[in-house]
Amino acid sequence: MDATDRYIDEHLQAFRSDFDHLISIPSISTDPSHEGDVRRAAEWVAARMERAGLEAAVVETEGHPLVMGRHEAGPDAPTLLVYAHYDVQPADPLDEWTSPPFQATEVGDRLVGRGTADDKAQVILQIAAAEAALATGGLPVNLILLFEGEEEIGSAGLSSFLRAGGSGVEADHVIIADSMMFAPGRPSLLFGMRGVSYMEIEVRSSAHDLHSGQYGGAVPNPAHVLSGIIASFHDERGRVAVEGFYDEVRSVSDELRREWAALGFDERAYQASAGGAALVGEEGYSTPERLWIRPCLDVNGFLSGYTGPGKKTVLPARAMAKVSCRLVPAQDPDTIVELVRAHVLAQAPPGVEVQVHKLQADPPWHGDPTGPLFTAAGAALEAVFGAAPVRVAGGGTLPIARTFSEVLTSSVAVMGMALPGANMHAPNEWFPAAHLHLGAKAVVRLYRELAASG
Amino acid sequence: MDATDRYIDEHLQAFRSDFDHLISIPSISTDPSHEGDVRRAAEWVAARMERAGLEAAVVETEGHPLVMGRHEAGPDAPTLLVYAHYDVQPADPLDEWTSPPFQATEVGDRLVGRGTADDKAQVILQIAAAEAALATGGLPVNLILLFEGEEEIGSAGLSSFLRAGGSGVEADHVIIADSMMFAPGRPSLLFGMRGVSYMEIEVRSSAHDLHSGQYGGAVPNPAHVLSGIIASFHDERGRVAVEGFYDEVRSVSDELRREWAALGFDERAYQASAGGAALVGEEGYSTPERLWIRPCLDVNGFLSGYTGPGKKTVLPARAMAKVSCRLVPAQDPDTIVELVRAHVLAQAPPGVEVQVHKLQADPPWHGDPTGPLFTAAGAALEAVFGAAPVRVAGGGTLPIARTFSEVLTSSVAVMGMALPGANMHAPNEWFPAAHLHLGAKAVVRLYRELAASG
Repeated sequence: MDATDRYIDEHLQAFRSDFDHLISIPSISTDPSHEGDVRRAAEWVAARMERAGLEAAVVETEGHPLVMGRHEAGPDAPTLLVYAHYDVQPADPLDEWTSPPFQATEVGDRLVGRGTADDKAQVILQIAAAEAALATGGLPVNLILLFEGEEEIGSAGLSSFLRAGGSGVEADHVIIADSMMFAPGRPSLLFGMRGVSYMEIEVRSSAHDLHSGQYGGAVPNPAHVLSGIIASFHDERGRVAVEGFYDEVRSVSDELRREWAALGFDERAYQASAGGAALVGEEGYSTPERLWIRPCLDVNGFLSGYTGPGKKTVLPARAMAKVSCRLVPAQDPDTIVELVRAHVLAQAPPGVEVQVHKLQADPPWHGDPTGPLFTAAGAALEAVFGAAPVRVAGGGTLPIARTFSEVLTSSVAVMGMALPGANMHAPNEWFPAAHLHLGAKAVVRLYRELAASG
Repeated sequence: MDATDRYIDEHLQAFRSDFDHLISIPSISTDPSHEGDVRRAAEWVAARMERAGLEAAVVETEGHPLVMGRHEAGPDAPTLLVYAHYDVQPADPLDEWTSPPFQATEVGDRLVGRGTADDKAQVILQIAAAEAALATGGLPVNLILLFEGEEEIGSAGLSSFLRAGGSGVEADHVIIADSMMFAPGRPSLLFGMRGVSYMEIEVRSSAHDLHSGQYGGAVPNPAHVLSGIIASFHDERGRVAVEGFYDEVRSVSDELRREWAALGFDERAYQASAGGAALVGEEGYSTPERLWIRPCLDVNGFLSGYTGPGKKTVLPARAMAKVSCRLVPAQDPDTIVELVRAHVLAQAPPGVEVQVHKLQADPPWHGDPTGPLFTAAGAALEAVFGAAPVRVAGGGTLPIARTFSEVLTSSVAVMGMALPGANMHAPNEWFPAAHLHLGAKAVVRLYRELAASG
């Protein structure tokens, strides 16, 4: 075993403590009441980078800060930028967690807690890899660790920072350390992610809630109206019934579809990871195709009237739904918002006020899975995990991937160490404990492969 | 002015203090965390009855207690039972109140607070009337004040108490003091109320919430399924599309419909009281007909996924709706639950679990608006308010009205002093301040009219 791997193994307990501490900070970027926690997480990460031997700084944005750590190997060495994020999703519904969400809890071979998989384990293992390399003979690439605190709310600060120019950030290669492997023992490299258009629909019928006996049957019910709108979003074939929704969708080659058909996508395991949900969707496509190359529309939240224990005979004055579309090339997220808005307004009956508010619009990203970064990362992952990574697209959204490829003109790959069924954004999120050190070892090999190729 | 009226006027400040105190007790019967408050309200009401000169007792039930106050005038006097309730609805949404819900606040000529109109003002003015009559020369009827703490959750305790027999309660006449006048200056007497079937519909697709990127487009969304179910409940003519829903609905005479058409129902005032809501409903019926003699189905609450500030890319595992039907004779509430259940289950697609839980099933009540009680109450109201009461039906539900007429074989009338637009069950509920003493004076006259009529 080489010295760097040994360093990682010998310091595993310390890395675990770092991980536990970072999980304990509820850095929920979407909730203003947690703004202080987000900053606390940033400052802790910067201090931890300094201890690892990097030159680190907290970089202010208009929102939550960035944390940047750098190491200079020299002008002839290639530059690798590693992206991750230290912010997390809210933890609710709290009553479905089997352990406290902001306390890393070891359950079998898993580390359970909000942000374990998405994305704090990656934050820790990237710092661990850099520290181990520096402590045992150097780090052969110019390294930039660039971690943000707004991934869960659209990455506005990082995007402005990169697009403004003058950031001083240049990189030949970008690794986005925020994803999962294809299966246990089978790593993945992602060359594409879906975009997202996120909206809130509001229906109002009255200035205030009403008694359902005094008014029921004689005035509109906004929950009925909004239900009708939601029900109109899909047709019988599982397709989105918003006019123009599919107009810009690019089909992928039959060759790629055949390659994916041969991948052995484990529907049973996927279903288990989905809490036993049925596998249904757009007619004519397999489950991975529905996730990777087909767009969709989902309600993320719906609220109207009284929803507490018991019953209340109220006729609500207001109904609200959060609705998001996942997009594929070449759908434009702002165009999709307009199409959905037009569809919604066309469904609204007289006598109610209906509004559609845009909360997020990020384009899809599809890159080209060839070249030295994919080759180097493939070799590094295979050396540690014993299997070559599969090259796939992701169902989620990483707006920043598109920004990196556009602004820095870097080659970009998404490489993460979580596992399918990690409960990201859901209760009991988890990360495989062994992947903290296996992941760090793979990253150390990536440095070496890039230095050798570069 | 007679001595009893003078007593009421001279003690108005004290009655107002009593009212303020009762409003300050959050006696929310549906919420187990307020059980102590409900009991506190009962004990205070019993003590206040004693001070008024009645023989009072807190009567235990399996749920929240009853409070009974009695006065014996003699075997030849008629017996009047007055019903009211001291429990209230929850106060949410709290942020729409302009004053603290559990603090009686004088705004112009209104007293604002949860329970002012429904039904604590009636509790106070009935006690005030009895006290004033007793203090100034006697009370010429046998009086039973029977106030319950479970009106908002179905009156199970009072219903058992009356149906069990052996309660010792007998009455010639029952006044249900829980309703509103037809218009300012125009009192009403109600001879009918709608029934209610209240259900909770639950749709589950998975054991836990999912990440909308990792699963969106490939698994069912329970919010979509439930929206489709809700959307299927009505047809284009505003009729309930549940098979069999109207089978047992009795039509009323053309004469009665003509009488109501001549009433001058003020649609503009009703609309204003509804917070400006549009007036829409079943085709072929006027607004009062939609409320008094036609059944309806309404969503009272809908909850799924993330509904807090900002956005969360979650694919919910569960969606829940509270749904209630208002019923008219001779619809059977349990039959309606079964019809709705069958409709809902027929809409459920494969791959999701759908359940319908019954929360309440109370039959409608229609009595006969003739005889000495309606005559006496009509004269009493006209003497104080200067206009004869209109005889109408109510849109809400008073299960106990049916119980009184069935079990005690009393004649029953609903007589209340709130005003249209009182925001019952909604924020900023209010009661007209002047109706505390006007109401008490009308009740005193009712005693005399009944005693005179024998």
